[in-house]
Amino acid sequence: MKTYTFGPHLIRSSQVFFLSKKCFGFVNLKPVANGRILFINNFPPIRVVQRYRDLNSDEVTDLFLSAQKIGQVVEREYQGTSLTLTIQATGQTVPHCHLHIIPRKVGDWANNDDIYGEIDKSTRVDNEERPPRSFEEMEKEANFLRSFFQSDDMNYN
Amino acid sequence: MKTYTFGPHLIRSSQVFFLSKKCFGFVNLKPVANGRILFINNFPPIRVVQRYRDLNSDEVTDLFLSAQKIGQVVEREYQGTSLTLTIQATGQTVPHCHLHIIPRKVGDWANNDDIYGEIDKSTRVDNEERPPRSFEEMEKEANFLRSFFQSDDMNYN
Repeated sequence: MKTYTFGPHLIRSSQVFFLSKKCFGFVNLKPVANGRILFINNFPPIRVVQRYRDLNSDEVTDLFLSAQKIGQVVEREYQGTSLTLTIQATGQTVPHCHLHIIPRKVGDWANNDDIYGEIDKSTRVDNEERPPRSFEEMEKEANFLRSFFQSDDMNYN
Repeated sequence: MKTYTFGPHLIRSSQVFFLSKKCFGFVNLKPVANGRILFINNFPPIRVVQRYRDLNSDEVTDLFLSAQKIGQVVEREYQGTSLTLTIQATGQTVPHCHLHIIPRKVGDWANNDDIYGEIDKSTRVDNEERPPRSFEEMEKEANFLRSFFQSDDMNYN
């Protein structure tokens, strides 16, 4: 089975639902899915760089044009009313530049910005507060999401 | 004096420190500058669109390649140790898609994510909690920042 690297972690191809020439989107091991928000996309470049500034121009373009495609799908399919896109470096829990693509609903957090604490917890693999999902659950979600992308979005090289 | 539009607001060219073909960077009326963080960049496209999904591919590329250039300058010049880049749509206070480029320091907020509440307050023009700066103060900061960019970054059309 092909694997992808997210910082020090191996990501199975069954978790990957989007693959562009330069980046991949995968479903989370410990998603924020408590009824307030449904989904956090991790979207890192395939070439491992720690910081956003280290991306080359092809990677920057690929990352954010892909984010438009993914954003449209996840906002619609998870009944969001808007999106938050964010790259965080301070407090970054995985040393591999990645973009969060998060469908939002009005009032999904009492404080609109409490979501960012949740993002940090979600990407922290050693977070003990939230139980990890099984590979079967992750594969099911990835298959669902993958079905919304055209084959020319999915450059499995 | 040439002006730029940020949602319903007019921005003077003296506030603008970066101008690409498709986007402009300007200093804030009500910055978060209480010793914890120094600077918030607003970086909207020149063509007014409400949502990130409405940007065309040239605008997406221009926005995020410019963000690399701006990010390097503001992180260095404001003695940051990292950056946060974010586009928010839920709770978005100005109906004009824009990117925040924020130099960060480790521990600049007790909770790393309290910054997002500050971003919202900073872009809310009617925010009463923080006094607006004078045009002279904004021009001084914009002049300082503008000096770090090459003339070919500054496509004043």
